[in-house]
Amino acid sequence: MSQHRNPPGFARRFQPPYYAVIFTSQRTPGEAGYGAAAAQMAELAAQQPGYLGAESARDGDGLGLTVSYWRTMEDIAAWRRQLEHATTRDQGRAQWYSHYELRVARVERAYGWDRQDDGAADPGPDYDLAP
Amino acid sequence: MSQHRNPPGFARRFQPPYYAVIFTSQRTPGEAGYGAAAAQMAELAAQQPGYLGAESARDGDGLGLTVSYWRTMEDIAAWRRQLEHATTRDQGRAQWYSHYELRVARVERAYGWDRQDDGAADPGPDYDLAP
Repeated sequence: MSQHRNPPGFARRFQPPYYAVIFTSQRTPGEAGYGAAAAQMAELAAQQPGYLGAESARDGDGLGLTVSYWRTMEDIAAWRRQLEHATTRDQGRAQWYSHYELRVARVERAYGWDRQDDGAADPGPDYDLAP
Repeated sequence: MSQHRNPPGFARRFQPPYYAVIFTSQRTPGEAGYGAAAAQMAELAAQQPGYLGAESARDGDGLGLTVSYWRTMEDIAAWRRQLEHATTRDQGRAQWYSHYELRVARVERAYGWDRQDDGAADPGPDYDLAP
């Protein structure tokens, strides 16, 4: 079933369609408990129904992108409701970010490449799993 | 028309639907001309028809996310063909990355928040422009 394993930091390669939440944010200076809360949120997200994985990077200027992947829009809505219950969201907004943009998108195509696969002009889809 | 301006590093807030290319990559160690080529590619992308903006971050371990936004799937396909002509793509694959994942997605919802807007529970859509 799984011919293919993505390296650390990458979500698994699921067969579209599935959904992505693209969260781009600018951190305020200072830690203010952010690291622990972010880790807790990531752990909580991973336990939600329909969660398929996430990828995240933040640069030295505090600009970060996190993309989480979900089976359906309903799974994303349920996660959002879960977040509303947690205080973390409002706390985060007030303390940790100066600005963010959030986009929900339907993934229609997915490809990947690994150095070990090279030689093929374009290895194309080689999915881990249907979502 | 434009009530709203996003800070540096953020794409403008367009009204969905539009399209996103989510490119997650692991850089190899060493510069090998990457910075200059990446800047050149970003500049070239910005000149393409249908380009709506991009957001990008790479962390200290070399894991990076770049999301570029486009008006239509056809615009993305045209940009991809443009890339095929450029040698940069193959060079990049061979030299600069150990792994990447590329996803094309249709943005269906977009929200944002800015510290200056706070007080509203959820400021909701406040688009710069229709795409």
